Amino acid sequence: MDDEDLMKKAIDKAREGIAEGQTPFGACIVKDGSVVACEHNTVWKDTDITSHAEIHAIRSACRKLETVDLSGCVIYSTTEPCPMCFSAIHWAGIRKIVFGTRIEDAKKYGFSELEIPNEKMKELGNSKVEIVSDLLRDENVKVFEEWAAREDKKSY
Amino acid sequence: MDDEDLMKKAIDKAREGIAEGQTPFGACIVKDGSVVACEHNTVWKDTDITSHAEIHAIRSACRKLETVDLSGCVIYSTTEPCPMCFSAIHWAGIRKIVFGTRIEDAKKYGFSELEIPNEKMKELGNSKVEIVSDLLRDENVKVFEEWAAREDKKSY
Repeated sequence: MDDEDLMKKAIDKAREGIAEGQTPFGACIVKDGSVVACEHNTVWKDTDITSHAEIHAIRSACRKLETVDLSGCVIYSTTEPCPMCFSAIHWAGIRKIVFGTRIEDAKKYGFSELEIPNEKMKELGNSKVEIVSDLLRDENVKVFEEWAAREDKKSY
Repeated sequence: MDDEDLMKKAIDKAREGIAEGQTPFGACIVKDGSVVACEHNTVWKDTDITSHAEIHAIRSACRKLETVDLSGCVIYSTTEPCPMCFSAIHWAGIRKIVFGTRIEDAKKYGFSELEIPNEKMKELGNSKVEIVSDLLRDENVKVFEEWAAREDKKSY
């Protein structure tokens, strides 16, 4: 599976979340070409403001691999990880972030983002994480639009 | 209870964590003068790299109050929240952060911190959160020392 295939898995997971009344975000964690965890945001479902797709996927991956050290893993996220998720990725030692839309897009759709781009977090925190942006951007914008068209949508 | 009493509760909780082989961090969330949640770090216990004291306390408070909106709450943290926890505090709408030691202290004790102070995160993210630093600093440094003296200590 290449980067686009893996991003599509994150997109499918985000759509699964939308269908369940969740917000439009999905994330997959991959190690040695295998998907270790793929989750969507469950803030509403779990009444847990920290349960963003990336945090959810990191928790699942830690549980599955029985370690808090996810070095060697890559995370595919439909939207640029917020500073909470970027920092969780740092703590987990994930080596590479690949994302679709940007924090500023999420903000436009009503999410109360701390608008600090991953590149800025990386620079300020002296992180070595690799960052790939804008993968399948158009498809990822569609995910936001599908969510926005729903009457039951709720941002936070 | 005043600020010092509430910080002492966070310190007691951190010590409880140390006794259980966890890292030396505690956090209390308070609403209208009552403690809603008080938790220590459980990264090792839960094999969950995201389970910092603040994230843990936010999850508990969301569950207890049955809402993801913790506006009106204050968080007392033995150490300055890392950028992950600062951002989680933002998402939860917590209005005030009171902390003891600083991120740079945690770094000295071996934690692989993204060294971005809360004031910097606040400025970059246009956050309105109130920040009070260095409360009971000496007592909080002692907590680090007690942890560092243990043979079973493990940072991440």
